[in-house]
Amino acid sequence: MSLVVIGTLAYDSIETAHDSRESALGGSAMYFSVAAAPYVQPRLVGVVGGDWRDEDMKLLARRGVDLAGVESIPEGKTFRWGGRYEPDWNTRHTTFTELNVLESFEPKLPAHYCQSKFVFLANAHPQVQMQGLAQVESPIFSVADTMNLWIDVARPDLDQLLHKIDGLILNDEEARMLTGENNLIRAAQRVLELGPKFVVLKKGEHGAFLLGEGLHFSLPAYPVTEVIDPTGAGDSFAGGFMGWIAKTGNAYPDTLKRAMLHGTVAASFCVEGFSVEELANRTLDDYEARFQDLQAIVTL
Amino acid sequence: MSLVVIGTLAYDSIETAHDSRESALGGSAMYFSVAAAPYVQPRLVGVVGGDWRDEDMKLLARRGVDLAGVESIPEGKTFRWGGRYEPDWNTRHTTFTELNVLESFEPKLPAHYCQSKFVFLANAHPQVQMQGLAQVESPIFSVADTMNLWIDVARPDLDQLLHKIDGLILNDEEARMLTGENNLIRAAQRVLELGPKFVVLKKGEHGAFLLGEGLHFSLPAYPVTEVIDPTGAGDSFAGGFMGWIAKTGNAYPDTLKRAMLHGTVAASFCVEGFSVEELANRTLDDYEARFQDLQAIVTL
Repeated sequence: MSLVVIGTLAYDSIETAHDSRESALGGSAMYFSVAAAPYVQPRLVGVVGGDWRDEDMKLLARRGVDLAGVESIPEGKTFRWGGRYEPDWNTRHTTFTELNVLESFEPKLPAHYCQSKFVFLANAHPQVQMQGLAQVESPIFSVADTMNLWIDVARPDLDQLLHKIDGLILNDEEARMLTGENNLIRAAQRVLELGPKFVVLKKGEHGAFLLGEGLHFSLPAYPVTEVIDPTGAGDSFAGGFMGWIAKTGNAYPDTLKRAMLHGTVAASFCVEGFSVEELANRTLDDYEARFQDLQAIVTL
Repeated sequence: MSLVVIGTLAYDSIETAHDSRESALGGSAMYFSVAAAPYVQPRLVGVVGGDWRDEDMKLLARRGVDLAGVESIPEGKTFRWGGRYEPDWNTRHTTFTELNVLESFEPKLPAHYCQSKFVFLANAHPQVQMQGLAQVESPIFSVADTMNLWIDVARPDLDQLLHKIDGLILNDEEARMLTGENNLIRAAQRVLELGPKFVVLKKGEHGAFLLGEGLHFSLPAYPVTEVIDPTGAGDSFAGGFMGWIAKTGNAYPDTLKRAMLHGTVAASFCVEGFSVEELANRTLDDYEARFQDLQAIVTL
């Protein structure tokens, strides 16, 4: 079934202990779309500037992403972000953020996007997320991501958003900040009291768990032997997760559990290359093979 | 089947952000025995001083632990250790270590212990571990733990030990130190090259994984909502793990995988109380109920 994603398209400058990239393809909606593409045709909503490279549009088109919702502002500049990772990967420093065209971004969904049944609101100001969601006429399942910044500066808007969505995906640090609970299970329980029917709590290299009413599923990460660049792993997880759900066409507990594995698979491909370099080459066969591997590792 | 454990008996001084205990029952062989006791009668080998409290001996006897191998040195003092945890539990400071009677400890196994089929060598100098192992006549399955100190100061002895055992249980930090590999999967692969047929790599609150030839199983931790004292969690894991294997009587891959869950269950009971206060009250029924809970959380 149809899946729409609203989020950022970016050029990233990334430094790791081993290598670096300038103006690499990035952004939450970018990673999400590339990750979800083997399962469905993601309908992408985002904004780019006049510096957006034609080759990047082609990459997305080749991947089967619907680009009708990508707004281009020729006189503007694409959102840019820079990050540097410590050798242990656990600490990331943001070296710069240039909002550029993102500053005045208001999502506008093309007519056919408004019929989408599955919605993912990637990290953005919660008002922007709500503007996007409001344009979808009768979504059957909507999930959002968020980040520390919005928890800090836009809490009332975020609280409103949390009552409009079915699920929230966030990481350990964000869950602790949102709820004031250090213990992650208790933090996830608190998130459920804020509105969503379920929460996916991501713990990076330590996996993720899913909590909802009568639903609890915990999964380790896929054992990647060489991490190249963790940028976008969380958005790729969301892409694999939502892509699988949209493909299946329902959000029953069994579907959500399997979606956790599909999200984990997508995130593992993401971190094996810079930017979307590896992820964008992965086929449905690759996804299925790694799904089998992961399932074998976690099955008694 | 019979299970012997060789390790320490201690009095611990523990400080957490919320509470503290002086001279609390501790030590690697203590936690291991109390954790394994619902499955088998562990045969305990260790040494205590004249300060060892009669009530502690009674607690172990009530738990069904075989105490024939506990040596008492009335003119000596029991091994004592002090630790303080940061509020996030992730950092532990050793406040003091008094080896006392442990300084000259040489394990002596009573005659009936020497017939044991399953052996656990809890953390100790690898020479002491080898002395203990040598006294078991025909073990079918032996597993050891170790720590940073021995990796640092007794590496040749440790390397020798690694060729005599079937499995090694160690934590993430120790695995990195032993192999020089930061990536945990690669670290575990390297450990296998050092001798053992399998390795269990513990990641504290993030679970553990098992790696061996044709064997890979990964498991999140049990979601404890309130940690009281993490001291002994690793030894309790080993107790549940080895207790289940000894009860089953074989070390087939399926047994080892299920043993990972039993170890996780024992560790979760351990951290829910100070010292062995909670763990020592847990019955076989409690273990089985939590095993079912954990299995439900990790099963697709």
